[in-house]
Amino acid sequence: MKTPTLYTVLSPSLLNLYEVNNTIVVVIDILRATSTIATVLYNGGRAVIPVDSVERCIQLGKELECITAGERDGQIAPGLQYGNSSFEYPREFVENKILVLTTTNGTRLLHMALAKGAKEIITGSFLNLSSVCEHLVEMKKNVILACAGWKDKVNLEDTLFAGAVVDKVKDHFSINCDSSHMAQNLYNGARSDLYDFMKRNNASHYQRLTNYGLEKDIKHCLTPDLANVLPEYINGKLIHLNHQ
Amino acid sequence: MKTPTLYTVLSPSLLNLYEVNNTIVVVIDILRATSTIATVLYNGGRAVIPVDSVERCIQLGKELECITAGERDGQIAPGLQYGNSSFEYPREFVENKILVLTTTNGTRLLHMALAKGAKEIITGSFLNLSSVCEHLVEMKKNVILACAGWKDKVNLEDTLFAGAVVDKVKDHFSINCDSSHMAQNLYNGARSDLYDFMKRNNASHYQRLTNYGLEKDIKHCLTPDLANVLPEYINGKLIHLNHQ
Repeated sequence: MKTPTLYTVLSPSLLNLYEVNNTIVVVIDILRATSTIATVLYNGGRAVIPVDSVERCIQLGKELECITAGERDGQIAPGLQYGNSSFEYPREFVENKILVLTTTNGTRLLHMALAKGAKEIITGSFLNLSSVCEHLVEMKKNVILACAGWKDKVNLEDTLFAGAVVDKVKDHFSINCDSSHMAQNLYNGARSDLYDFMKRNNASHYQRLTNYGLEKDIKHCLTPDLANVLPEYINGKLIHLNHQ
Repeated sequence: MKTPTLYTVLSPSLLNLYEVNNTIVVVIDILRATSTIATVLYNGGRAVIPVDSVERCIQLGKELECITAGERDGQIAPGLQYGNSSFEYPREFVENKILVLTTTNGTRLLHMALAKGAKEIITGSFLNLSSVCEHLVEMKKNVILACAGWKDKVNLEDTLFAGAVVDKVKDHFSINCDSSHMAQNLYNGARSDLYDFMKRNNASHYQRLTNYGLEKDIKHCLTPDLANVLPEYINGKLIHLNHQ
């Protein structure tokens, strides 16, 4: 059997260079959409519905009587109830609930992957790193690790996560992709203390969020396997497959 | 005085996200356009005229009675005289001559930067690393390190060079750019043996060129300061400023 391929796409602007059709796309938006998604589903949330605008978020929230959440430029968007921090979503709050989420970068990328015919879309974060890797190895399909970045610019934390995945699954894939090797090298140089690496390298997102006092949030989002679920996008919703 | 900014753009597809106007753009195409340009000018060539098509290259070659050179997919393009290897351009061959060069990625990026209103365009390669860095520090202007990549995909060697520049000039610039920090980290992990790093990481360009038996060429293109000139794009030609 042919070894499946793996590519890392460092920015949504580069997705059109890759064959998305028939591929598993892992959407990566570490700070903080895909970390929040993992947390909500891990804590028993029924589904996260990603939408691309605040207006749509408010509208769906009313229709489905569910939690509305989302940020613009790192702050709770006007008209929505909650933000994009894992700490806002403990089990006692989200269990059996549906959350409608709009974010600056992650949601848009998910919809791009969908439009380009991805076979399967899952979301990845350090919080569910092992679940993602085990799934990719098991599926034996071509994979694209798609980093959301920040307004189409490449960012450190999404690249670091892609590198962590490459590091774990590389023996199971044919990786003819410089971005993947770059990400893996970056991750291996940073893995002993990802938070310190972000800080030392003056990551743009680190600055953006610490301006809002969110150091604790960043540390949480860089910790592996605190919410080991597999959020998969099915019929417009992200659900944890094993809960079906 | 305000500290000038420095950004690294990992692919031509991302250039539109940056403010190019009034900026010094360093075009980077290590394997091998910008290495060849440095070599030709270092060895006394009068100018290198970068063009974006083989047809234009042939036409200009006739008009100006000069050397035509260029490759498509790593081989000398049909109708042209020479390829894209530094070893083809010793002093006894190129001194006082003009070379018209068309390449797969570098020329296109140069024309993009020009169209977007760059204040100054220079070309960078390991062969002229120090000249580029000294110039950037001296000019005290905003800088974009623009990697040509391979058909818009990010590649290792152009990123490594951007990292080498960042490493050398970082104290003179305000660098709020994750791609620059990534490149610098990558370079610092690789600098002890860049060739070995390319080989170990299975760089896509490494494979492409070693298929044509060009290991020696790759090693040459990864060696700092073998051709320390400053190629600047002026009125359609790349010339070595200190020769004016």
